[in-house]
Amino acid sequence: MPTNFADRLLNAIAEKAAPVCVGFDPQLDQLPDELRGNAVSQRSESAHCANLFADFGREVLAVVAPLVPAVKINIAFFEPYGPDGVRTYMELVGEAQRLGLMVIGDVKRADIGHSAERYAVGQLSGRAGADGGRPDAVTVNPYFGLDGVKPFLDVAREEGRGVFVLVQTSNPSASQFQGLLFSDGDTVCQKVARMTEEWAVGAGMVGERGYSCVGAVVSPRDLASTDRVRSLMPHCIFLVPGFGAQGRSAEEVARCFKADGTGAIVTASRSVICAHREPRYRDRFGGDWRGCIEQGCQDFITDVRRVTGR
Amino acid sequence: MPTNFADRLLNAIAEKAAPVCVGFDPQLDQLPDELRGNAVSQRSESAHCANLFADFGREVLAVVAPLVPAVKINIAFFEPYGPDGVRTYMELVGEAQRLGLMVIGDVKRADIGHSAERYAVGQLSGRAGADGGRPDAVTVNPYFGLDGVKPFLDVAREEGRGVFVLVQTSNPSASQFQGLLFSDGDTVCQKVARMTEEWAVGAGMVGERGYSCVGAVVSPRDLASTDRVRSLMPHCIFLVPGFGAQGRSAEEVARCFKADGTGAIVTASRSVICAHREPRYRDRFGGDWRGCIEQGCQDFITDVRRVTGR
Repeated sequence: MPTNFADRLLNAIAEKAAPVCVGFDPQLDQLPDELRGNAVSQRSESAHCANLFADFGREVLAVVAPLVPAVKINIAFFEPYGPDGVRTYMELVGEAQRLGLMVIGDVKRADIGHSAERYAVGQLSGRAGADGGRPDAVTVNPYFGLDGVKPFLDVAREEGRGVFVLVQTSNPSASQFQGLLFSDGDTVCQKVARMTEEWAVGAGMVGERGYSCVGAVVSPRDLASTDRVRSLMPHCIFLVPGFGAQGRSAEEVARCFKADGTGAIVTASRSVICAHREPRYRDRFGGDWRGCIEQGCQDFITDVRRVTGR
Repeated sequence: MPTNFADRLLNAIAEKAAPVCVGFDPQLDQLPDELRGNAVSQRSESAHCANLFADFGREVLAVVAPLVPAVKINIAFFEPYGPDGVRTYMELVGEAQRLGLMVIGDVKRADIGHSAERYAVGQLSGRAGADGGRPDAVTVNPYFGLDGVKPFLDVAREEGRGVFVLVQTSNPSASQFQGLLFSDGDTVCQKVARMTEEWAVGAGMVGERGYSCVGAVVSPRDLASTDRVRSLMPHCIFLVPGFGAQGRSAEEVARCFKADGTGAIVTASRSVICAHREPRYRDRFGGDWRGCIEQGCQDFITDVRRVTGR
């Protein structure tokens, strides 16, 4: 197993012939009725919710592990349940890895100096002694410039892990700030793309396949700007959110890949982990929510394969 | 007690006649020897470290509570210890509030859509059921534009709490991104200052004293740019890091205040909570580390009062 994160991810994608990642963003009111109904009494509401997420998460991971190379687990959905939530997040990270999945911890952290180093150690490394898994890569916010990112690069380099820098996000108001235009023709997010490419190459983490362990979160907005950020970051693997529920077009998503079909991994969350709530799957699988999720995942893979022409 | 966060903070500052905030960023190797020596065996290294931070934190809070209006607790220093660390963070938030302190949770969160709402609920509200305290305000990152901030504003409005948007940070590389210049003469961080003022006024959270529950983290870089951001955000209370250890000059910090002496709260962390490691305090107080911290806090207050001319 190569220790370089980018090589590991690209190999995992090749093995499953699917540049996809299932996002795990669980919400209580969207869990299968069966799980909610089985709820046993816990010492607190937060422990109860965290346990439901753990149960659901283990089932989802078991269903998708044979199909996809990676999952993205979003810690935001666990933090409302305090320490219990964080424990469940870490347990699911470890469980996914035991099932052979690559795990991206969607933590969107960043700070400066010692604080950033502490976040990097906390989120990417087990060296401070807390039990549970640590993801193969995490998402980080670029607002601080290099100081906010470098501690993550350092820990990632030491431990064979990766970092995805938020470059172009998928929210409606992203352009309010990320789209602001400089006089040289760059937008704010294109400046961040240039910084990210610089970090990706400068950090000494480019693997055998020509990609760095420093990748970028890029949600395509239109064809021209997507082509632009793709060309600005030749060494970065794009983590592409917004397929399915957030409705990016196939053509837009296709532009996140290079001509050889590498360079991006597409994520979908609700269209897979909430498939049991979709009439088209319920009609077919009835109360078999695992079957719905498996089919939702298969359909997601088929859609992305179509996009990449493979 | 007014429920508006800005009014509560300004009243607390007036009561102590000190626009200061003690930052709690504990590191294991900087704890008083006495505490490290007392360490009892715990079920794990992380539980052990989290307990040391809890012991140290309770002592620090008891020392500073009679002197200052507010503390800022940085969750980055707790996350390496996993669920145990998060539990300690929340316990200390609650303990500080029981001692009458306002608490700023330095969490630097941001995301979009449901994720941002989950962070806001998790970090600002106890409504999801986890035990422990929730801070009176949190720090948030502006990179997503309004979508990343609005869920925090909504929870803050509902629960009488506040939000500090990162505008100008204190790290050396901040200017790499925040200092980039637009053709209209604004820098990136001045654009963020304008957005933040808009959110501060638009969120309907301006209190009786003319300040909004939406404030800004502003580390002064030079006199001219500090004057500029101060004038761009008339409704925002500035949370000013970098006094003491990070070495901002008194004159620079003074420009974060308005002429009437309101509008800013200055933070210091290491110069207070690590005062027992400074020869000038050890020479005077010997092994009495609480005495060192109390004097470090008094000196910090004196310095800030001198800066503001009060």
